[in-house]
Amino acid sequence: MKESGRKQGALSPCAACKLLRRRCAQDCVFAPYFPADEPQKFASVHKVFGASNVNKMLQELPEHQRSDAVSSMVYEANARLRDPVYGCVGAISSLQQQIDSLQTQLAIAQAEVVHMRMRQYGSSSNNIPGTMDMVVDQTNAGESLWSC
Amino acid sequence: MKESGRKQGALSPCAACKLLRRRCAQDCVFAPYFPADEPQKFASVHKVFGASNVNKMLQELPEHQRSDAVSSMVYEANARLRDPVYGCVGAISSLQQQIDSLQTQLAIAQAEVVHMRMRQYGSSSNNIPGTMDMVVDQTNAGESLWSC
Repeated sequence: MKESGRKQGALSPCAACKLLRRRCAQDCVFAPYFPADEPQKFASVHKVFGASNVNKMLQELPEHQRSDAVSSMVYEANARLRDPVYGCVGAISSLQQQIDSLQTQLAIAQAEVVHMRMRQYGSSSNNIPGTMDMVVDQTNAGESLWSC
Repeated sequence: MKESGRKQGALSPCAACKLLRRRCAQDCVFAPYFPADEPQKFASVHKVFGASNVNKMLQELPEHQRSDAVSSMVYEANARLRDPVYGCVGAISSLQQQIDSLQTQLAIAQAEVVHMRMRQYGSSSNNIPGTMDMVVDQTNAGESLWSC
């Protein structure tokens, strides 16, 4: 889709050149990443980073990294437009909170496994003679959980 | 520290006005958030977002949200300068991977709790008569784990 836009040359400027009202040159740095049929992508990065900064950032990167850089800039710009106070950092904070919560839940679950294992070991060695080998195996299996 | 910088008025321009080589007015929108003794903060947001966009974004926010907005912009700009391809989005991707990994570990631990509980229930009801009440209590305790 991007390529078909370029084949038409000056007759079909990329979304960036269209918004900036300038001629879209054959070697336009924006054209491969901002096709005319997705005008919102450039509008977002232009509003948040500014066309000049986007241009500079792309020029400073090797070509094979530019597509990823554009995707991350579009994502970041959209986050900033949705949430002008926190932008992407709001998402980072929310994910960090999820991690804290999951780590707490995991610690509780793992503690319960250890607790049950110890109780099982206690009741096994007191009440059911001859199950020592099985208990040792389970202890090893438990270690693999902690090393996840 | 911010206030002391402002009290000196035009004699001590804020970091933004200093970098932009302009007079720092008494009502400068940058001054409360970019004190002269932290020049790197404005240098980063200027390089990534551009002074004009930062100005515009601050003007569009109520004053009580501007400090948080500046902090998140500085964080985002520094992330983009450290990692020009992925910026903040790299951190988001990494946190998302941590969440996936923690969710897997939690599912394993919780499955092990359920498995041990069922085995314990089985052995309790088969081998140790009169422990039904205790087993029911443990099942309830287990439910609280799932609802974390």
